[in-house]
Amino acid sequence: MPKIAIVGSGFIGRGWAISYARAGYDVSLWDRETSAPEAAIGYIAEVLGDLAANDLLNGQTPDEVLPRLSAEGDLAAALDGAVHVQENVPEILEVKRDLYTRLDDLAAPTTVLASSTSALLPSRFTDHLKHRERCLVAHPINPPYLIKAVEVVPAPWTSAAAMEQTRLLMLEAGQSPIMMTKEIDGFIMNRMQGALLEEAFRLVAGGYASAEDVDIGIREGLAARWAFMGPFETIDLNAPSGVRDYVGRYDGMFANMFEQMKTRADWSGEVLDRIEEDRRQRLPADKLEERQKWRDRRLMALAAHKRSEEEKTGK
Amino acid sequence: MPKIAIVGSGFIGRGWAISYARAGYDVSLWDRETSAPEAAIGYIAEVLGDLAANDLLNGQTPDEVLPRLSAEGDLAAALDGAVHVQENVPEILEVKRDLYTRLDDLAAPTTVLASSTSALLPSRFTDHLKHRERCLVAHPINPPYLIKAVEVVPAPWTSAAAMEQTRLLMLEAGQSPIMMTKEIDGFIMNRMQGALLEEAFRLVAGGYASAEDVDIGIREGLAARWAFMGPFETIDLNAPSGVRDYVGRYDGMFANMFEQMKTRADWSGEVLDRIEEDRRQRLPADKLEERQKWRDRRLMALAAHKRSEEEKTGK
Repeated sequence: MPKIAIVGSGFIGRGWAISYARAGYDVSLWDRETSAPEAAIGYIAEVLGDLAANDLLNGQTPDEVLPRLSAEGDLAAALDGAVHVQENVPEILEVKRDLYTRLDDLAAPTTVLASSTSALLPSRFTDHLKHRERCLVAHPINPPYLIKAVEVVPAPWTSAAAMEQTRLLMLEAGQSPIMMTKEIDGFIMNRMQGALLEEAFRLVAGGYASAEDVDIGIREGLAARWAFMGPFETIDLNAPSGVRDYVGRYDGMFANMFEQMKTRADWSGEVLDRIEEDRRQRLPADKLEERQKWRDRRLMALAAHKRSEEEKTGK
Repeated sequence: MPKIAIVGSGFIGRGWAISYARAGYDVSLWDRETSAPEAAIGYIAEVLGDLAANDLLNGQTPDEVLPRLSAEGDLAAALDGAVHVQENVPEILEVKRDLYTRLDDLAAPTTVLASSTSALLPSRFTDHLKHRERCLVAHPINPPYLIKAVEVVPAPWTSAAAMEQTRLLMLEAGQSPIMMTKEIDGFIMNRMQGALLEEAFRLVAGGYASAEDVDIGIREGLAARWAFMGPFETIDLNAPSGVRDYVGRYDGMFANMFEQMKTRADWSGEVLDRIEEDRRQRLPADKLEERQKWRDRRLMALAAHKRSEEEKTGK
């Protein structure tokens, strides 16, 4: 199978390595910290066992997937022969710009250079490159081997061919690509998360709800539908004749609410004290790491549930 | 067990009847349309079979639950001896006001009168009542026997006793009550849904995303976490030291996005044509009803999944 290079083998790089190796690709891991790729492969070996136990390895055993991964100390060797480079280095503009200069020199001119960045627009760190048309963002939600959505975001100079090659690779790797036509701060997912969080902070700041009330309203309420339909299919099925019918019924209600949502709550002000107090009461600081492991188990169980339901009743 | 009266036995009333009967309450169903309560009980008999098959009847058989339901042609008889009235009539202010006048006369003075309204503030249809202190909103996400969140919303004159009695009833019925301290348009859940939909419409209107892109970003992305954590626990676990750490890292990013979110897209304008076209391409209008059944099966499967995971690894 073709080879993919992981540049930056921390938390996000590891996750990508699992997705690509599971799909059959040879995966070469590099990191500025020379011990990181080996550490990543050790971590991945453990995760592969969990994935197999949840039938999330496409019927393969961990022993079939693990040998596809290799640690590489030399960046040029890692990139040699790669059809796709997945970059996951820290979100520091100068670090990215310098790295992309090196990647653009070392990688074959048609190899796609894809950044996992969530915070930086692709135009900001690729404008100076000779082969900048093969650069784009492929932003996952972590971990990509359990959560399928990936935003594929072009800079103004990204070629259609690079976008299409990435779309096909994402499908091959079992992801669900969101193909953006132009870049915008926060892409799609962080913008929707931001819009929802803004209202959540406002509701807590206004004394209408606690952090836990908000979480109940999503986790025991709205997300029960969103988790397998998304918000547009949800409203399309929530009025007898579909989405136009829904808008006809509720547009006025939402227009009225919108007028009340134009002021931002100061996230770092007194409201944050209240939210933090609520959270720490439910989860002491020294239990955060344990709870993150619980979250990862639940994400895996939910991925297995969705896969099984989609096989039974369709997507 | 104590008795609960369902006033308005359409889609929402039926759902409540299942929740209450499953919890052991005797449930009396009334409707202005005299054939509706019998029809509701026929429908409920079918649903109880599905719930039993998914182990969502608390270990009971449908035959144990069904006899707790009874159709009542006379409103006074339906209310007689009820500890709680769950009202589910159309969202028309004058209809509600007139009905509450009757309910206030007929029900014992301490019986809680709870409305399922999503669109009307409780103060708007209870201000004129003699015993208005026992009136409130208990707004479910449908269907309540599968989706736990219920907003409990006081009018300015609602008593603490009525709120507390309702909170305990919701817990008894297996719901997750969100106890609001004062009323606001859209309560908690529709406000958060509205905030997210606003950004979704804006992204489609701006040509950044299709309706399907937005749905992928939630259903294959953000909602994978929200479905068992909610948005605040999600960000609390998404930075090493918790929510304050998260806000310190990302507040600037979200503040910048917020400035771009102050203009409303015209939901009923050209953007709606595009969204409807996208939806109808994926789901023809004559398949909406079939897809609603698919949704209900998936909601049931997700509820069963969450229940089983919570038993295994905690909430």
